[in-house]
Amino acid sequence: MRAVVIDGSGAFRLKQRADPVAGPDQVAVRVHAAGLNAADLQQARGDYPAPPGWPTDIPGLEIAGEVEQVGADVTGMSVGDRVMALVGGGGHAERIVVPADLLLPLPAGSSWREAAGFPEAFSTAWDALVVQAGVRAGDRVLVTGAAGGVGTAMVQVAAASGAHVVASVRRTELHDRVKELAPAGSTVEVVAPGQEGGRAPYDIVVELVGGEECLRRVELLRTRGKILVVGVQGGTVAPLRMFDLMLARAQLIGTTIRGRSHAEKALLAATVRTSVVPLLAEGRLRVPVDSAFPLDGYSDAYARLAGPGKFGKVVMEL
Amino acid sequence: MRAVVIDGSGAFRLKQRADPVAGPDQVAVRVHAAGLNAADLQQARGDYPAPPGWPTDIPGLEIAGEVEQVGADVTGMSVGDRVMALVGGGGHAERIVVPADLLLPLPAGSSWREAAGFPEAFSTAWDALVVQAGVRAGDRVLVTGAAGGVGTAMVQVAAASGAHVVASVRRTELHDRVKELAPAGSTVEVVAPGQEGGRAPYDIVVELVGGEECLRRVELLRTRGKILVVGVQGGTVAPLRMFDLMLARAQLIGTTIRGRSHAEKALLAATVRTSVVPLLAEGRLRVPVDSAFPLDGYSDAYARLAGPGKFGKVVMEL
Repeated sequence: MRAVVIDGSGAFRLKQRADPVAGPDQVAVRVHAAGLNAADLQQARGDYPAPPGWPTDIPGLEIAGEVEQVGADVTGMSVGDRVMALVGGGGHAERIVVPADLLLPLPAGSSWREAAGFPEAFSTAWDALVVQAGVRAGDRVLVTGAAGGVGTAMVQVAAASGAHVVASVRRTELHDRVKELAPAGSTVEVVAPGQEGGRAPYDIVVELVGGEECLRRVELLRTRGKILVVGVQGGTVAPLRMFDLMLARAQLIGTTIRGRSHAEKALLAATVRTSVVPLLAEGRLRVPVDSAFPLDGYSDAYARLAGPGKFGKVVMEL
Repeated sequence: MRAVVIDGSGAFRLKQRADPVAGPDQVAVRVHAAGLNAADLQQARGDYPAPPGWPTDIPGLEIAGEVEQVGADVTGMSVGDRVMALVGGGGHAERIVVPADLLLPLPAGSSWREAAGFPEAFSTAWDALVVQAGVRAGDRVLVTGAAGGVGTAMVQVAAASGAHVVASVRRTELHDRVKELAPAGSTVEVVAPGQEGGRAPYDIVVELVGGEECLRRVELLRTRGKILVVGVQGGTVAPLRMFDLMLARAQLIGTTIRGRSHAEKALLAATVRTSVVPLLAEGRLRVPVDSAFPLDGYSDAYARLAGPGKFGKVVMEL
């Protein structure tokens, strides 16, 4: 098979690799599309190694494709099933082996490219907002960096949960597109960075940007409000005014999925299968695809991922 | 009645005031002892005003005494009942009026001075550790600043909950006394500040000191661990390394009691009445009294409160 491989110097190369073979609890998937994530670039720089049990030098954290081979102990899966999955690496290749308990069924109406952009963003958004922060109807939720892959998912999950969503988006040309993410019956307000205070207070702030000023947003919280720290690429260290946290009786919650145990990931996949995939199937959630590239256009794909002004997910089609 | 009053210049003075009279939902209490807290000093400096409904210029956040008058709508209380309470201010006076739903019964074996040091520290400790952080048997809990009033309560509540407690105490001459706080069947380890890492990881860190380095303790947390930010007098702003928070999937939880609504305070008092006072009555919790002063020794009392090397609570006896 062809695969994108991170070479010794941290550069991406297209290489031939042997097709992987499914073990007893696994399935082999012919990948039709795969999502790109900032973690792929971090992995290439050497500061985000793949977790044990996954290819160490093939990037790619989410895939959509067709089951080609089913392990001896796997039940309920057949060759030809259309699946998607959040994986620990190895997604940017024509074939991947995935533990069966991580697989999600592809809704009938979803294209490969949309499905490839679903697992990472929506697992992250559902886990953070619903499972951890317990978002509820009527909550006021601020999402920073709302136009990106995870941001567009956070906005939709919050709005679908009945929250009033304020989305902070730097590029004004993307404001209307973020507004249109609102599922039927909900509204999403869009503001420029720095203007979030005018819509405060918030029950939940989803931090997808980071930077030295980001923890000042504790001031924007309602009593017992929560900040979910999900992305901090704009700056990873910030001063916290602890009296603000105490007086608001607020919580800062850090979260990632990648470092979790297999059991935890399987538990999250089960939750997503039960609760989130149906919302995608019903059209209440959708995956905005910023751009799609063929496998041999991998350089352009990663460049687009690293660049500014994206709306939603960057994917590869294989 | 005599009362300590904060005058216009922020100094404490002993003055005569009219005896307060209980309204329909209140009781008037003849105060026999009252605890001192750092918030009393902050209030005198003008940066911690009393909440609405409480004396604005009389310090004192916790009292023990005898019921002298019962409001018309209060049931289940009689003149002569021995009570204690966490109050919004006005405790450093011979009499105080308290909403009946904040009163706690005094266990038979408790002295006035011990009872006066119970409400603030143990309500804070129970609310933070049990109600908010959900401490459980087997948890590893670090308490910084463990020799003070709240610290000694946190150590005991954690140990009584079945946690393994590591207490960080600056003064080595207090180490043995903190060790001896362990309720029967539990053990408390005591370390010097800076040595907490040797006993990591922790499920819960109780921050009672603050300072610029305090949020580095995120590194000492177990996955999904929590830092309870309860006291930050050693420095109120600290840098947070957000990747550490994310990778540990950790939580920072800020908490105070003073700013809560009356309904929330009454709910907490009900919890303390049901769950914590019985542990005091059984001798599984105790109130270490650092020192006791008569009302006219108020200057010495506040000086002792502000000074170093205390073990447990400073109280006044009236």
